[in-house]
Amino acid sequence: MSVSMYEASIPVFVRGLKNLSAILEKAVTNAEIRRIKPEVLVNARLAPDMLPLSAQIQILSDSAKGCAARLAGVEVPSFADAEVTFDDLQERIEKTLTFIQGIAAADVDGSEDRTVVLKIGGRELSFSGKSYLLNFAMPNFYFHLTTAYAILRHNGVDIGKRDYLGDI
Amino acid sequence: MSVSMYEASIPVFVRGLKNLSAILEKAVTNAEIRRIKPEVLVNARLAPDMLPLSAQIQILSDSAKGCAARLAGVEVPSFADAEVTFDDLQERIEKTLTFIQGIAAADVDGSEDRTVVLKIGGRELSFSGKSYLLNFAMPNFYFHLTTAYAILRHNGVDIGKRDYLGDI
Repeated sequence: MSVSMYEASIPVFVRGLKNLSAILEKAVTNAEIRRIKPEVLVNARLAPDMLPLSAQIQILSDSAKGCAARLAGVEVPSFADAEVTFDDLQERIEKTLTFIQGIAAADVDGSEDRTVVLKIGGRELSFSGKSYLLNFAMPNFYFHLTTAYAILRHNGVDIGKRDYLGDI
Repeated sequence: MSVSMYEASIPVFVRGLKNLSAILEKAVTNAEIRRIKPEVLVNARLAPDMLPLSAQIQILSDSAKGCAARLAGVEVPSFADAEVTFDDLQERIEKTLTFIQGIAAADVDGSEDRTVVLKIGGRELSFSGKSYLLNFAMPNFYFHLTTAYAILRHNGVDIGKRDYLGDI
């Protein structure tokens, strides 16, 4: 009895991505009500040298599809990072969900000790599958999910922790 | 082969709390350099109706000690939420680390199907240990960890993703 690598990864990403999709819908409605151009929110940042909402969601998508693919031992699909509207971002989330939901549990299970090598900023990092998931992919995923939430919340969108957690 | 309930919980919390402790040290140094009263950062928020840094860290502590205790089947220790300085917050982190590091792996392992009941806002929520960890405790923990980071980053503290991820 324990948690399988699949259970600890893909369903967690699916849940987070679906919750984010619902949050983005609320943001669009809120922008309409407040007569704010939706692009203002898509380009909003928490600091001038932080990435805007669109990039937070692109990196969130990358962290989910990258982790799912690496644990399953398949190629990481490349997405173009060309999203500029909320519709584009919803499509990006949808594409990410389609990819990760297409991966079979059996392909991820057993990846605890699979070597995962990442190149980040010129450094080559080598992880076990388990350490990659728990110490890198998961903190990264939640970082960008929470930052996306925080950008919208900081800009007055009426969302709360329940939207972030989703149905529990 | 899989991930044990212990591996998926306590070491993840320990890592996040230690990274946060180092981030708070950087915040203190940064406040000194910029001649900002440290309390300004302790009380900073991302929105007027969001909680300040101090409360983010109190809830982060609660989510880690609550999860560790509930999975191990021991009483959740109560801390007073009286922190008003960075030193207080470091002490809170330290107390939280001491408690969760005192829990034996053997007491958490096997808690996948243990029933965990929470009362939140008048609702009673019932989880399996596994669902509580993956769908509630972990997203909550990372929510408050990232929000604490984001409050400091938004206020010009010179931290980056590497500080959040820690040594990898």
